[in-house]
Amino acid sequence: MNILLTGFEKFGKEKMNPSWDAIKDLDGAVINNVRIFCRQLPVSFKRAPTIVKELLRSIRPRFYIAFGLAGGRNTVTVERVAINIMDSTKPDNDNYTPKDETIFEDGPAAYFATVPIKDIIKVLRGKRIPAIISNSAGTYVCNTVFYSGLYYANKLGLETKVGFIHLPYDTAQVLDKDKPSLPLSLIKNGIVELINFLIEMKNR
Amino acid sequence: MNILLTGFEKFGKEKMNPSWDAIKDLDGAVINNVRIFCRQLPVSFKRAPTIVKELLRSIRPRFYIAFGLAGGRNTVTVERVAINIMDSTKPDNDNYTPKDETIFEDGPAAYFATVPIKDIIKVLRGKRIPAIISNSAGTYVCNTVFYSGLYYANKLGLETKVGFIHLPYDTAQVLDKDKPSLPLSLIKNGIVELINFLIEMKNR
Amino acid sequence: MNILLTGFEKFGKEKMNPSWDAIKDLDGAVINNVRIFCRQLPVSFKRAPTIVKELLRSIRPRFYIAFGLAGGRNTVTVERVAINIMDSTKPDNDNYTPKDETIFEDGPAAYFATVPIKDIIKVLRGKRIPAIISNSAGTYVCNTVFYSGLYYANKLGLETKVGFIHLPYDTAQVLDKDKPSLPLSLIKNGIVELINFLIEMKNR
Amino acid sequence: MNILLTGFEKFGKEKMNPSWDAIKDLDGAVINNVRIFCRQLPVSFKRAPTIVKELLRSIRPRFYIAFGLAGGRNTVTVERVAINIMDSTKPDNDNYTPKDETIFEDGPAAYFATVPIKDIIKVLRGKRIPAIISNSAGTYVCNTVFYSGLYYANKLGLETKVGFIHLPYDTAQVLDKDKPSLPLSLIKNGIVELINFLIEMKNR
Repeated sequence: MNILLTGFEKFGKEKMNPSWDAIKDLDGAVINNVRIFCRQLPVSFKRAPTIVKELLRSIRPRFYIAFGLAGGRNTVTVERVAINIMDSTKPDNDNYTPKDETIFEDGPAAYFATVPIKDIIKVLRGKRIPAIISNSAGTYVCNTVFYSGLYYANKLGLETKVGFIHLPYDTAQVLDKDKPSLPLSLIKNGIVELINFLIEMKNR
Repeated sequence: MNILLTGFEKFGKEKMNPSWDAIKDLDGAVINNVRIFCRQLPVSFKRAPTIVKELLRSIRPRFYIAFGLAGGRNTVTVERVAINIMDSTKPDNDNYTPKDETIFEDGPAAYFATVPIKDIIKVLRGKRIPAIISNSAGTYVCNTVFYSGLYYANKLGLETKVGFIHLPYDTAQVLDKDKPSLPLSLIKNGIVELINFLIEMKNR
Repeated sequence: MNILLTGFEKFGKEKMNPSWDAIKDLDGAVINNVRIFCRQLPVSFKRAPTIVKELLRSIRPRFYIAFGLAGGRNTVTVERVAINIMDSTKPDNDNYTPKDETIFEDGPAAYFATVPIKDIIKVLRGKRIPAIISNSAGTYVCNTVFYSGLYYANKLGLETKVGFIHLPYDTAQVLDKDKPSLPLSLIKNGIVELINFLIEMKNR
Repeated sequence: MNILLTGFEKFGKEKMNPSWDAIKDLDGAVINNVRIFCRQLPVSFKRAPTIVKELLRSIRPRFYIAFGLAGGRNTVTVERVAINIMDSTKPDNDNYTPKDETIFEDGPAAYFATVPIKDIIKVLRGKRIPAIISNSAGTYVCNTVFYSGLYYANKLGLETKVGFIHLPYDTAQVLDKDKPSLPLSLIKNGIVELINFLIEMKNR
């Protein structure tokens, strides 16, 4: 059994992206015979979906949890729903700025996460990480990746359960700013616990 | 040489007050011949100032740093100024609700903190703790304690340097809430470093 | 041709609901041969959808714009998407608190608004009303009404275009609170202009 | 009897400053034999205090209410206290960026407003304008003007009562932004009522 985690490359003026730093050290880990794959995605509306597709096809993970940064949010937020739209005012890293574009013409308006979001919330809180449900992953690349994961898991006939977790700023990113944050070390603890939970869930 | 730290008792519906939990373990510590005194203050407009006076008189600290909770703030905030007013809409723990009352009739409108607030900011950030200056400690018991520390240090002819630091929620307080927070462990690291800084500063 | 507008009854401790006060005076108005119907909906997960169904069936409006209060938001927000879920921690006015319930078993995960949301934004801004797109109408009764409007318009084979607009607090609701708001008079101007726009759009 | 109102010139990228637009039409008005003087101040740490001094000396107003913009605040805020410090990270319109400078070497740490701030709050709310007390006017030019007004009123031996009111964004400034605001027309009504109140107060 495999588990796939993805994070994003750097974006804008930020020197790091906690969504990648939070997971990168787990790549290649084997826990209870489960192999963890961690991959970095580009902040690109056009390239990210294809990469997600290839990752799902080659790794065929039992679970795919994508991580993204939601700078300005207070807590970890577990996304409930991905919507079939790309809409932005700021360009992505390929300098592309979609306006109300459908991600996949043959996809539904939305997919709900197929991982148990409220259980994930409980797991994170159990590790003393503030975590709540979010009802919108936005209309930027994060949502596109989340939607793509659900779309391709379905399209490819995989049993992969797909979720998306938004992280707040890492404290080290905002030392001199009036912004909410949580330390990466805390987030990392939570992700390890989350993996343990997913493995256990599968075994039940 | 002595250093005095104070935090507050529990308040409202909260089960703990991070301003006390952050410092309590340091009580009695001796670092480089400097003795640390940690005391818990009541959330009481009338009783807290007298206790501050007695603590200053008996301990005669070189530095007095008071801590309080500012639930809802994103970061640690180091207060710049204490003002001579008590004004509240919510009662204190003695069920007292002052309306535009002067704290000390013979006191000035305000005192500035006598510790170097921007150096403290740097020390905290050096330990990866987001920290900024605040220009208002409010008009509740926190400000009253801050003002009282400065007033009595002056009144009693002490050399005590006085500061006030507001802490955000501890993450453990807001696990299921959409509120900014920082973990107590991180805050504690910062306070130890702050004490080291104060001791070193004195020695220069 | 008919246009249907709905707002909500009072909820919680509030003495009014701006989503109803903003539209109620328009009920019965006839503008360019278009008749405006304004109806108040209960804050009820179970009763509201059925009322929406009956209104659509009897009025057969060309446009149905539902209004709701989003206390705490800074501006008018035009909702992009309705999702097939009811999930709440606070009870509705019937004392019902759904947990992750589907609104309609045979409905899709989501519907996008069928009115042109970005044109509506422009119309509102043209009347000097701050307005932005929202990607989540929440999982409370507002979203349920929005989803129900889209579901039944489809189910009943109507040509009705459906939208949902969240209003911020009316200034009169928050005179002594630190909350964002806009005055009802401004909102009302915007709604009249919105109706004019819808009528004109239909005629093109 | 004279009343002096001041607002600020444009600042940064903004095309207008509501603190000036809110008052400019009142200049020269005579209400119940009271003459209203409205003046625009530069966003300049160095020039503004001198202009305030000259205005107070020449106009000798019974009341001086300064207005400023506090973009991002939800409501009108009536300032309680001015502090003797200039501290900024962004330059003023003269490209000057003070760091922890005292405004007047011979001034106290702070002055409290000498107008009745809670009565002003009531007057504004009576005109359906959300208004609350603020305990910090910041450390930028607004605070400098507020402090200068109180300092010079005292220095020059005037009976002038001095206050400072921060306005939120005008709605027209933030039509496409997720920012709180209030329309200028509403603010203007409040200021007229405030003048009436001040005149009446003086007559008692």
